[in-house]
Amino acid sequence: MPARLIDGVAIGDTMRAELAGEIAALVAAGTTPGLAAVLVGDNPASRTYVRMKGKACDDAGLYHETIELPADTGEPEVLALVRRLNADIRIHGILVQLPLPPQINTQRVLRSVDPRKDVDGFHPENVGKVAVGDPSGFRPATPYGVQQLLLRSGFATQGRHAVVVGRSVIVGRPMASLLLQDGPGGNATVTVCHSRTRDMASITRQGDILIVAIGKPEFIGGDMVKPGAVVIDVGVNRIDDPTLKKGYRLVGDVKFEEVRGVAEAITPVPGGVGPMTITMLLYNTVQAARQWVPA
Amino acid sequence: MPARLIDGVAIGDTMRAELAGEIAALVAAGTTPGLAAVLVGDNPASRTYVRMKGKACDDAGLYHETIELPADTGEPEVLALVRRLNADIRIHGILVQLPLPPQINTQRVLRSVDPRKDVDGFHPENVGKVAVGDPSGFRPATPYGVQQLLLRSGFATQGRHAVVVGRSVIVGRPMASLLLQDGPGGNATVTVCHSRTRDMASITRQGDILIVAIGKPEFIGGDMVKPGAVVIDVGVNRIDDPTLKKGYRLVGDVKFEEVRGVAEAITPVPGGVGPMTITMLLYNTVQAARQWVPA
Repeated sequence: MPARLIDGVAIGDTMRAELAGEIAALVAAGTTPGLAAVLVGDNPASRTYVRMKGKACDDAGLYHETIELPADTGEPEVLALVRRLNADIRIHGILVQLPLPPQINTQRVLRSVDPRKDVDGFHPENVGKVAVGDPSGFRPATPYGVQQLLLRSGFATQGRHAVVVGRSVIVGRPMASLLLQDGPGGNATVTVCHSRTRDMASITRQGDILIVAIGKPEFIGGDMVKPGAVVIDVGVNRIDDPTLKKGYRLVGDVKFEEVRGVAEAITPVPGGVGPMTITMLLYNTVQAARQWVPA
Repeated sequence: MPARLIDGVAIGDTMRAELAGEIAALVAAGTTPGLAAVLVGDNPASRTYVRMKGKACDDAGLYHETIELPADTGEPEVLALVRRLNADIRIHGILVQLPLPPQINTQRVLRSVDPRKDVDGFHPENVGKVAVGDPSGFRPATPYGVQQLLLRSGFATQGRHAVVVGRSVIVGRPMASLLLQDGPGGNATVTVCHSRTRDMASITRQGDILIVAIGKPEFIGGDMVKPGAVVIDVGVNRIDDPTLKKGYRLVGDVKFEEVRGVAEAITPVPGGVGPMTITMLLYNTVQAARQWVPA
């Protein structure tokens, strides 16, 4: 029997509906949560993501603005823009779309965002708060969304072995932090493997829960998955496909059809983790706005 | 053949000798690195640790002071003391000895330490910097010391499976961060297991490197260790022993004699990780002092 599909669109919709009441209350109290997106250069994928985030804000009744800068913008101009947004009272959340062009030091820009407005959770202060389990820290949207997918699909993590493939600062490492926390969606035994791991299949086959974020198209085959595992595919890769009008199709980091025959449940690409990332960004923006409302 | 002993006293001494030149240069330039220890209450183990750290400062030519407060001290007084130390130009490193009495919120106190003086690496900003691999963050002394023990004993971590037993904010989690970094002493496949882990032995037996910091006396037996593994025992536990004049002896989290017959190398308790923790605290204090010296 093929694996059950974990529907990120439906779960994301449910969560946004739950959030709507809180947004309405904030708006009624005079605070419309506001998100600013900074887009430097013209990476087409980045442009798509920022547009989707803006649309999600519109649909949810949040204020948003997107500031687009040319690809040759210098670091001082980006830092000056972030300073202006840090001081802008309409803006509660700031996201700097990555990747940034090479002349800009990404860590320096991320550290310049006011931690109270860092809804991507990339500032070291928020990374640290999440690592020590302090709930005032913003959880990065993608791993936070994966955790919600598991919780809301009824897959317990406690005492189970979660294997994370990929050690990026954006997904793999904070994912491990969240899975290790003491609480719902945590208490897992966690393994992180990556490009330097030897005999990767022997590791991934241990995962009761397998979370793949390594950025390699269809990297995980059926022989790398434990029968009955829950598989979460974070990857989004473009593959040339001349049979399609747009000339490409999207695939994850998992061989979907093959793994579907082995796993108990799996996220599709698209329609799995992606919608949850955007949903959790809205959650973080509302959490950010709440800080500025007098108690 | 019993396992080779990893001698933390000898490696610590070597590292302190290496540090002596740098300390001498700082002193000659007018900056004597200074460490303040805050001790609240009269926990005998805490008192011993603080005394050992003070002695290590003396031996290394560092300035130090220990501020002792009674067990019923309120949080505001501790916060006021930390503020004073944050502003004291003789003090480059501040350590608040844990545990604090229950009327004091530990996270609030740790967050009040100036991150530039947080030589224990417990402030969220430093936790986050270490998690993202930013070298300006202070690495917590115990996992930093374990990493140095491995490096200086010639045990490569790259591509090997490191299993960390225990998920504390002080040892287990930052240990996993350091082992995952891209660089010497990193690039390992890392598993963190803990009290909620099912069938712990099946996990620990996979560790090419097994690091135990679970705080349970002699928890790891020989049957839980992979033959040929490198075993690092972070635990320090007092066990009643009426045959000794002091009435107790120290044991680690590992059954030493039993595991010695299985492992390739092992740290003793005492004389393994402990001296390295103190050594790395000196390193961090020197790193902290360096920030205040004009370039």
